[in-house]
Amino acid sequence: MQGTQQPTSQTAAYQATDRTVPTRSADRASYDKEVVHAILDEAYVGHLGFVRDGAPVVLPTLYGRVGERLYIHGSTGSRPLRMTGQADPGLPVCLTVTHVDALVLARSAFHHSINYRSVVVHGVAYDVTDPEEKETALHALVDHIVDGRSRDYRGANKKELAATAVIRLDLNEVSAKMRTGGVNDEPEDLELPHWAGLVPLRKGYEAPVADALLAPGTELPDYLKTL
Amino acid sequence: MQGTQQPTSQTAAYQATDRTVPTRSADRASYDKEVVHAILDEAYVGHLGFVRDGAPVVLPTLYGRVGERLYIHGSTGSRPLRMTGQADPGLPVCLTVTHVDALVLARSAFHHSINYRSVVVHGVAYDVTDPEEKETALHALVDHIVDGRSRDYRGANKKELAATAVIRLDLNEVSAKMRTGGVNDEPEDLELPHWAGLVPLRKGYEAPVADALLAPGTELPDYLKTL
Repeated sequence: MQGTQQPTSQTAAYQATDRTVPTRSADRASYDKEVVHAILDEAYVGHLGFVRDGAPVVLPTLYGRVGERLYIHGSTGSRPLRMTGQADPGLPVCLTVTHVDALVLARSAFHHSINYRSVVVHGVAYDVTDPEEKETALHALVDHIVDGRSRDYRGANKKELAATAVIRLDLNEVSAKMRTGGVNDEPEDLELPHWAGLVPLRKGYEAPVADALLAPGTELPDYLKTL
Repeated sequence: MQGTQQPTSQTAAYQATDRTVPTRSADRASYDKEVVHAILDEAYVGHLGFVRDGAPVVLPTLYGRVGERLYIHGSTGSRPLRMTGQADPGLPVCLTVTHVDALVLARSAFHHSINYRSVVVHGVAYDVTDPEEKETALHALVDHIVDGRSRDYRGANKKELAATAVIRLDLNEVSAKMRTGGVNDEPEDLELPHWAGLVPLRKGYEAPVADALLAPGTELPDYLKTL
């Protein structure tokens, strides 16, 4: 991701705000939409923050992206979704997504770190009530798990749709932050005998494990062979 | 992790509270300390939520665990750490840690899911000012990245210690939540021709990449060979 820290044009970047300019390591921040989208699309789970009785709550959640909108779904009984439905005009939230790419082992304790890519989205979540938008959102949520899957399942029926709440969070106040590259030790520490370097984390997938009760003749679909 | 959902004894479990009892899928919740510790110890990054100007903020952070205490560190200029130092008696926070273990592809859109393990910690963060506790915390933070590493580095000097803030979050109001196992389709959907099953995510590490400027004769340490 190096070399992508700066937005390529005004229209391809989010406007920085007081909340999205980091207090430190500002050189690691990016407002580039392509950078933000790539980080969001690669992750499965985001961490959704909201305020309940004055205290912060952070819950893991699946999400889907349609252009500049994120959708989150869950049971109509789930706390943030219920709170969003009851809030007027919406529920202030923060959704954060992080990839850990490598452990960074420096010669000094101080410079230990990790290589990561994260996105922080500030905004207000709104209940999605329009049936068409809700369907679009639910397709996006499944396609976010596996691209193309929404053309190969039994769609939600009325009862399931009624049990599912969907909320929308627009991508307006957004920033990415990342650390890439190697170890940043102090020059005077370079001769120390401690091993230093990166330990990259494994990424990707293990072989799919088919359900024991697959209908006869059901084969592994192409979109899973190319994951 | 199946079979570990219930605490084995009162002393080995966190006390459930209004905030830690989920509004749904309560059978996926656990208050068992061993379960919680294992989830915390396996992850690198937690998502720290706090309230700023009435709105939620969620930031990724490294952390370390010493018994029933979590430590988070950062620059003294970082927002949540600075806010904790200024808050009296401390800063209400929520720290959440999540592992994604597998994608769950069901025959129906509704039953798509992921297998995951998460921990949510509610509490108040306190600034760590005692030098001995701060040193313990910083060791734990590095050992959390790679176990044993704190015996093989150049420790922080006065200037580095002064630039580093550490906050403490006690494990009192804590719960784990997880989904394990296979696909939960409706009985009437089993004959549908859609592939269903799990796609496990790859875990582990790639080969370590040594810094180009390692001191001559510095070999890969044993604690990295057994990662």
